[in-house]
Amino acid sequence: MTNPRANVLLCGCGAVGTMASVTLEKSGRAAVTVVLRSNFSKVEKEGFSIDSVDHGKLSGWRPSHISSSVQDAIKNGPFQFIVIALKSLPDIYSIPQLIAPAVTPFESTIVLIQNGIGNEQPFIDAFPNSAIFSGVSMIGAHQQDSGVIKHDGPDLLHLGPIYTAAISRERQDELAAEFSSLYTSGGASCLLTDNIIWMRWKKLVWNASFNSLCAMTGLDSGAIWDAGGVETIIRPVMDEIVSIAKASGHILPDGIQQLTIQSMPRDRYFRPSMLVDVDRGNPMEIEVIVGNPLRIAQELGCQTPLLQMIYEHLKLIQWRIVRDRIGKRTA
Amino acid sequence: MTNPRANVLLCGCGAVGTMASVTLEKSGRAAVTVVLRSNFSKVEKEGFSIDSVDHGKLSGWRPSHISSSVQDAIKNGPFQFIVIALKSLPDIYSIPQLIAPAVTPFESTIVLIQNGIGNEQPFIDAFPNSAIFSGVSMIGAHQQDSGVIKHDGPDLLHLGPIYTAAISRERQDELAAEFSSLYTSGGASCLLTDNIIWMRWKKLVWNASFNSLCAMTGLDSGAIWDAGGVETIIRPVMDEIVSIAKASGHILPDGIQQLTIQSMPRDRYFRPSMLVDVDRGNPMEIEVIVGNPLRIAQELGCQTPLLQMIYEHLKLIQWRIVRDRIGKRTA
Repeated sequence: MTNPRANVLLCGCGAVGTMASVTLEKSGRAAVTVVLRSNFSKVEKEGFSIDSVDHGKLSGWRPSHISSSVQDAIKNGPFQFIVIALKSLPDIYSIPQLIAPAVTPFESTIVLIQNGIGNEQPFIDAFPNSAIFSGVSMIGAHQQDSGVIKHDGPDLLHLGPIYTAAISRERQDELAAEFSSLYTSGGASCLLTDNIIWMRWKKLVWNASFNSLCAMTGLDSGAIWDAGGVETIIRPVMDEIVSIAKASGHILPDGIQQLTIQSMPRDRYFRPSMLVDVDRGNPMEIEVIVGNPLRIAQELGCQTPLLQMIYEHLKLIQWRIVRDRIGKRTA
Repeated sequence: MTNPRANVLLCGCGAVGTMASVTLEKSGRAAVTVVLRSNFSKVEKEGFSIDSVDHGKLSGWRPSHISSSVQDAIKNGPFQFIVIALKSLPDIYSIPQLIAPAVTPFESTIVLIQNGIGNEQPFIDAFPNSAIFSGVSMIGAHQQDSGVIKHDGPDLLHLGPIYTAAISRERQDELAAEFSSLYTSGGASCLLTDNIIWMRWKKLVWNASFNSLCAMTGLDSGAIWDAGGVETIIRPVMDEIVSIAKASGHILPDGIQQLTIQSMPRDRYFRPSMLVDVDRGNPMEIEVIVGNPLRIAQELGCQTPLLQMIYEHLKLIQWRIVRDRIGKRTA
């Protein structure tokens, strides 16, 4: 074979996306074209500066190719895998529309590494002739400055196919095994599961509660503890998530609330992603973390007054962020 | 009579208290001793600087006596009326304990000018031998700087006795008429009502919704409108307040939600008291504006999930304010 390396397009090099690109390149079996947005000019000039629990310290690190847009990146195609590690903001931009020029029907497999629930549907609708894999990342990593990544919690990626009828199930399983093998041989872990949506709900127990409440109050996870919010708000919100998951056929383990609460040590003053968004004046992933679960609850007739309140409240905060960005009142 | 003037003690000279003291003094029929806290040294030196829609511009204005404590003020007693215009913070300090040295049984009438529900009970418990009047102020006024008051909405005080068995009903009505007459002859309005608790619930429709949500989101009342929060949160919260009021025997007018929403013009970007507290790092009147109504709801079996969430959320914000005040994490 002239080119034994898988050709990968990776969109979104925040902390999660950057570490995925490092892992895939380190396998020696993938050539990664990354599409950067806010950190493009910095990284094009200086490369990434990475301090990683999995890969050690990397200075001036670069993937095979760096692009500032998908349009520019397609010169490196066609792509076997298109990894999406962009924030999921369906209310702000359409990722399917963004990547469409890079998707080759029956050849490109789309790999979503994102938070939330219901992220897959827009891709299923837009690309019926592509395999789509849904991923839940358990990595601990954040971008400290443009192109500067601190990776302090091992990268474990749960991955499962959302089977399309257009491609044989065997082929989709084969592709999933191939991606998982690439990823794992690069020095991180990628575990295949046939229940990735269940895994999404499981992770949502933390995100819908702690992530939301931290963003709403400006308090980090430890402060929520100290202020008594775990019992008064976090646990009741978790109960609602567990009940929606159950109504939608995803039975989470008994005591998942307590396990999730204990998963973050009380003295770890963690600022989750939506709070970091508030700090930086960036839009939050409200729709996939709260909006979609809420819509599922409404369809299934679940009573979720707290989640409803959280949703409406976060939208007001989002409105404030947008207003303050554009520096004037909006109608 | 050697002293025809009513001897009044007034505690709490924020905007509402200061304007009440001006009105009472202007009647020419009351001598007011004010007890100041944060603005004492400024006002003792320079007097109040007031720009009032009712009284015009007053520079270096002083009431009859200025004290820095109730202990100091009692040298001017005994007091016929003790007006309380302090913030109602039962979770932080006890006003009955504070004023106890100044209360003469059967002689001192206590006049509460405060926001919220249930403010009267601690005074009823502490002073069974005093007439207690409950007041709801519709004034528009705020303290721009220490001792500097902008009074831009006419002072209308609704007042009603909370009858005690220790004093004849006739005498209490007489005292109420006397206070109302003093107040009105000073250039403002004091309307007596036999349904002051109903009036408190009516005002609470605004306070529990707009005041709370502004404090929770950092948005002013106009921004809540612009961001769509009136329909998504304000109105449902108002519905809960109306239902608690009803369960407790206070039937508010049909359409009170819409009337209350319209009472504040959309283009008036008003920062209500609890938002101002957040801005200044001061404790908010959570317990009387949200906590007491919630406890009444629980006693009466009303379902009020939004108010519950608001209550717990505001307590987290309060915790943050206290933490930031003392400049370190608290356990």
